[in-house]
Amino acid sequence: MTETSFNPADGIAFVNGAYIPLAQATIPLIDRGFVRSDATYDVAHVWKGSFFRLDDHIERFQASMRGLRMSLPYSASEIADILVECVRRSGLRDAYVQMTCTRGVPPRGTRDPRLCENRFYAFAQPFVWIANEEQRRDGLKMVVSSVQRIQPEAVDPRIKNFHWLDLTMGIFEAYDRDALVAVLVDREGNITEGAGFNVFTVRDGVLATPNRGIFEGMTRRTVIELAAELDIPCEVRPVSVDELRAADEIFLTSTAGGIMPVTVLDGSIYGNGKPGALTSRIHDTYWQRKADGWLSTKVDYPDGDA
Amino acid sequence: MTETSFNPADGIAFVNGAYIPLAQATIPLIDRGFVRSDATYDVAHVWKGSFFRLDDHIERFQASMRGLRMSLPYSASEIADILVECVRRSGLRDAYVQMTCTRGVPPRGTRDPRLCENRFYAFAQPFVWIANEEQRRDGLKMVVSSVQRIQPEAVDPRIKNFHWLDLTMGIFEAYDRDALVAVLVDREGNITEGAGFNVFTVRDGVLATPNRGIFEGMTRRTVIELAAELDIPCEVRPVSVDELRAADEIFLTSTAGGIMPVTVLDGSIYGNGKPGALTSRIHDTYWQRKADGWLSTKVDYPDGDA
Repeated sequence: MTETSFNPADGIAFVNGAYIPLAQATIPLIDRGFVRSDATYDVAHVWKGSFFRLDDHIERFQASMRGLRMSLPYSASEIADILVECVRRSGLRDAYVQMTCTRGVPPRGTRDPRLCENRFYAFAQPFVWIANEEQRRDGLKMVVSSVQRIQPEAVDPRIKNFHWLDLTMGIFEAYDRDALVAVLVDREGNITEGAGFNVFTVRDGVLATPNRGIFEGMTRRTVIELAAELDIPCEVRPVSVDELRAADEIFLTSTAGGIMPVTVLDGSIYGNGKPGALTSRIHDTYWQRKADGWLSTKVDYPDGDA
Repeated sequence: MTETSFNPADGIAFVNGAYIPLAQATIPLIDRGFVRSDATYDVAHVWKGSFFRLDDHIERFQASMRGLRMSLPYSASEIADILVECVRRSGLRDAYVQMTCTRGVPPRGTRDPRLCENRFYAFAQPFVWIANEEQRRDGLKMVVSSVQRIQPEAVDPRIKNFHWLDLTMGIFEAYDRDALVAVLVDREGNITEGAGFNVFTVRDGVLATPNRGIFEGMTRRTVIELAAELDIPCEVRPVSVDELRAADEIFLTSTAGGIMPVTVLDGSIYGNGKPGALTSRIHDTYWQRKADGWLSTKVDYPDGDA
């Protein structure tokens, strides 16, 4: 294959030990990571040239691999080096950085997952936002989905996984109902999470966020830590749909967007249609702390601090 | 890329409109079919040079696509032609044939699944057996898994999908407990299905198989139809774990193996450790009918009836 011209800022991937343009990166059609969604992943982000909580993401990624009985020949620091190198080569100052471990391709004639050699795929691409700038400023429209989130007794949601058909059908439902995002429920009528985000409610100055049936997102963890610093009470426990509806403020947390206010829920304007005071305070603190270099890992770009 | 020598009998894939060696077949790393398991598929099989129920498989595949709001530019007969051509080029007389539709790669900067162009991937590879010849003759060892199957309120199991982490952890559990396969349960204590198979019980000459929380497999459908022909009562309804344990016979159905007796359940020898009479009767009828060309589509191989 001849090398075609490409723009590294479109994305760089690490596949089979080599750094290549993301647009050329593939996985085998018969990798169980695809045909059985037998994979785990994690997503870190780079903002203004620095990773946020890179070591925490890698630590969680390694825990997820252990949970699925997978292993890779890379140490945590080697994984970090690969991720940094993807970003460095892309030149991207704001990037979405994914690390993935798949079960791999089974030896011929067997379906025994124990016999697969696990594979590592990583890439950096331009930062992805769940919501655009206007939506983030004015608030998102959300629906409570009729779809339930996959239950923890089937798939451990703390092991980050690609089992997203429930979340994807939730996205379709949101669009059908003139909204941008959907929060899924559990069988007991509690809220869980949406496609790539956790949910917080604010009521009488107290934060609450679900403790069960969810992926424990890094931005969620960050908000819980910031709340403690700011002396804002934060309860991590089941949150019912009724409680969501009765909240003073609602916001979402995601690596793909930080802290995002919700101002319309199921078609009803919410919190006067403007981001609430506590949401704004946490939002501003989050971005300020990041600007100050909190928990950051600087990327050493070949062209310096351009 | 230069063409390397390969054996077509290792498998042929249809990717991006071309027939290529399966070992070279890939999907983009950022196809939502991989990174969100946003895909549906179906598996037909070829036995002694003929497809079994090819049209039924394609009809179901198209229903699954509609269920996920996907579409392809191929008619049912065009899909059939592609699958037959994969097998014809492979020369395989006994083959496992998979058709897959993925959501595709989102346009840059968006995560809207509606904007993706859905993609079609197909391949034929050597027939895969869930159990080897000895296991199929003497019976399989099965466990009742501690893992629950993903609930239908989250992901419609009738839309064949790659959300298999529950099934995969069940496979690990089976191996840990000296068994080959695991059947997963639902929250109510009913059995559902295992990795690639449905379950039937026999009690006092009556068949029973679950009606909920399962993929309605083609071999399951075939057994229900054969039972009607043979005047064997067959009940399609919830089947509890207790009922499974109290059965006279247990068998599994799968495109990857047909009718497979279970003779050890949770370490206890079962049905005298031999395939039961009714299981054997259905097994023999299934293979006899297939040998007679029932519901078959013959592949016209380039080298004739070799």
